[in-house]
Amino acid sequence: MPTDFATGLRCRVCGKLYPKGPTNFCTDDFGPLEVDYDYDAIRANISRDKIARRPKSMWRYGELLPVAGVPSVGPQVGGTPLIRADRLADALGVERLWIKNDAVNFPTLSFKDRVVSVALSKAREFGMRTVGCASTGNLANSVAAQAAQAGLETFILVPADLERAKIFGTAVYGAKVIGCTGTYDEVNRLCTQIALKYGWGFVNVNLRPFYAEGSKTMGYEIAEDLGWRFPQHVVCPMAGGALIGKIHKAFTELTRVGLVDQPVTTKMWGAQAAGCNPISDCVKSGRERHKPVRKPTTICKSLAIGDPADGYFAAKLMRDTGGWAEDVTDEEIVDGMLLLARTEGVFAETAGGTTVSVLRKLLEQGRIPRNEEIVICITGNGLKTQDAVFEAIEEPAVIKPTLAEFEALSGSLTAEPVLA
Amino acid sequence: MPTDFATGLRCRVCGKLYPKGPTNFCTDDFGPLEVDYDYDAIRANISRDKIARRPKSMWRYGELLPVAGVPSVGPQVGGTPLIRADRLADALGVERLWIKNDAVNFPTLSFKDRVVSVALSKAREFGMRTVGCASTGNLANSVAAQAAQAGLETFILVPADLERAKIFGTAVYGAKVIGCTGTYDEVNRLCTQIALKYGWGFVNVNLRPFYAEGSKTMGYEIAEDLGWRFPQHVVCPMAGGALIGKIHKAFTELTRVGLVDQPVTTKMWGAQAAGCNPISDCVKSGRERHKPVRKPTTICKSLAIGDPADGYFAAKLMRDTGGWAEDVTDEEIVDGMLLLARTEGVFAETAGGTTVSVLRKLLEQGRIPRNEEIVICITGNGLKTQDAVFEAIEEPAVIKPTLAEFEALSGSLTAEPVLA
Ligand SMILES: Cc1ncc(COP(=O)(O)O)c(C=O)c1O
Ligand SMILES: Cc1ncc(COP(=O)(O)O)c(C=O)c1O
Repeated sequence: MPTDFATGLRCRVCGKLYPKGPTNFCTDDFGPLEVDYDYDAIRANISRDKIARRPKSMWRYGELLPVAGVPSVGPQVGGTPLIRADRLADALGVERLWIKNDAVNFPTLSFKDRVVSVALSKAREFGMRTVGCASTGNLANSVAAQAAQAGLETFILVPADLERAKIFGTAVYGAKVIGCTGTYDEVNRLCTQIALKYGWGFVNVNLRPFYAEGSKTMGYEIAEDLGWRFPQHVVCPMAGGALIGKIHKAFTELTRVGLVDQPVTTKMWGAQAAGCNPISDCVKSGRERHKPVRKPTTICKSLAIGDPADGYFAAKLMRDTGGWAEDVTDEEIVDGMLLLARTEGVFAETAGGTTVSVLRKLLEQGRIPRNEEIVICITGNGLKTQDAVFEAIEEPAVIKPTLAEFEALSGSLTAEPVLA
Repeated sequence: MPTDFATGLRCRVCGKLYPKGPTNFCTDDFGPLEVDYDYDAIRANISRDKIARRPKSMWRYGELLPVAGVPSVGPQVGGTPLIRADRLADALGVERLWIKNDAVNFPTLSFKDRVVSVALSKAREFGMRTVGCASTGNLANSVAAQAAQAGLETFILVPADLERAKIFGTAVYGAKVIGCTGTYDEVNRLCTQIALKYGWGFVNVNLRPFYAEGSKTMGYEIAEDLGWRFPQHVVCPMAGGALIGKIHKAFTELTRVGLVDQPVTTKMWGAQAAGCNPISDCVKSGRERHKPVRKPTTICKSLAIGDPADGYFAAKLMRDTGGWAEDVTDEEIVDGMLLLARTEGVFAETAGGTTVSVLRKLLEQGRIPRNEEIVICITGNGLKTQDAVFEAIEEPAVIKPTLAEFEALSGSLTAEPVLA
């Protein structure tokens, strides 16, 4: 059972160290706090063999997560497939392409299950009995489900215009769901006030330092499933901008603790929707800091954060690693969803369509070489954003169940008998 | 890499052995064919250790599946969580309860991914380039997705009144989807005609013997995750009646090949919807053979097979093992879905609600003792049958994103501040 090697929370601006508590900003400069570890101790305690003998969940990398022992919430989260995507590779004209598929994550079909499992395990450790979040949808589903399983009281605040599957798919778990008029950023501000006043555990507010660490496990799994090495490129959707940074942090840590004997040279590429592109715009325009998007307008609601908490760090990371960012239109997002489903049998939500189409755009721009190894992160399931793509699909034909009607129709559908 | 230890296809009525080809019935007596194995050879070749070293997918039990080497379709299917369900256990008043959760199966969120991976791997081995199925929905999703990934031409025939998520969620993969007026049984008859005439691989028609073997892997995983032993009770949803039989066959095989040193004493319990209950009615009425249900009427469309192919065998199995069957109303199905989501954070489709509510009924009838160990099979995801349950949930409240409005509302939602 892994020990907790986290030593405290460190300010990302001034470096000041805080004890491991439910707080997320430095009282000196309001810089965000990040979990700090004793990496030498981890290095002495971790090995590929040890990991291989553990169950295939995100918790097999427990030494690198800020929880001691078996987590009390979500011990079975993660361990999703890394898929060799040869048919999508052909369609895009690249040689080696992989899909990290969190669309089948347990329990709620998005990578958010990873962050929530860490955050709620900490919430329990801190003795909290009420938890919640501000969410663009996937986080809401995951907090509601995992808090239900843990028997915690739950408040979920979301923009009122989210997809039905995300709102009702949160209420189904018995969470108290509150729709808010206004944008995600306004909802998030309200959650910060609530967390401060009541001391409840808001996973992406006062539990954020712990929460965000969960995203690293996507990176660990990618590296392990490639045979303990890194791809040359990772393409990742961005909302708050945390995930992309944490995948890169994961790679760096694997080198630091001796699990991978290779420096990290992976280029990080970020994907956003054109209707809400604060981070990609920041990268493309050469600005150091992003300009908030006041009124996001895109079908990709899960990525619609206009004023991303980790925008600055994400933009810097992409530049520093030699990557770049792009954004695509709603039409391109739907095309990306269909292309992924039709080549690889993976039905992703709008964020996945965004990622696929951004990859295509970056290839067309010549930014990512076609002969290098690429991993794309599919972070959520298509069944949650059905309307976005079902409207683009023709209504299936209806026949009477007779061979004659089938043959009359199937001819027009153009398929060849194999034997005849 | 596992060898193919299948020796042929054996008639379940007369025992005649046929070569391993794309056929599903005995030409002498029209009995269904089932894959036969050289169990002595498997026993000599398999061990818990060997299995433990393989990736956590259904293919780690490859010796017991009718495919040689790495399957060409779906190598990453299976390996879903077995969850200790203490909160649901409390709600139902039982001591030890587990959920086998195929609602997060890769790639299409139901146990059907298991059967399809075997069937399409065989289809490719047989040189087929066009495949298809008759389906109540989940099978359609899975055939379409996995055939897309394999680059196969696909025809899917379904009753035209299926859920939108299941019909469009099949078309999204580029399959040729055809809605048929009439019942599943009529659609299935048409598929039999098409398969015979064109030689296409219909997974649940001419590939059925191979297809059905895939379901055994749910049983292997349950036993392995319990520490290579069997539960006292398994509650399983039934449509065609194959899954319940294959889980039991899996247990029997594990004993036979020496992976479990315990005789199989598990009692098998079957769950159906009251609006389509041919198998449970058969068990309850004491008939040897089921009376087909001509016009299924239930929200649980995935289980709506009126004339189940394996109905006779399923009913016999439940009687022989000391189990029983029950069926529940649509209202009870929805209650079961909500209970499962609210206690365990698992959002299952209507079939899952059916299974939970049937378990409750069997407990109330005193048929399953409350102090014995029970596994329930959750076989599909709630996002595919959203309307069934979302209609039972109150529309969430909408507020302006201010602390004042939150506090006015949250009071009425009754939650206590932890600190104040
Ligand atoms: C499906 C999906 N992908 C990606 C992201 C982006 O994550 P982050 O906010 O860490 O950038 C989100 C965030 O909500 C999401 O829901
Ligand atoms: C979700 C679900 N559960 C259970 C079953 C029952 O399987 P079987 O037909 O093997 O009885 C089905 C069949 O379609 C299904 O879709």
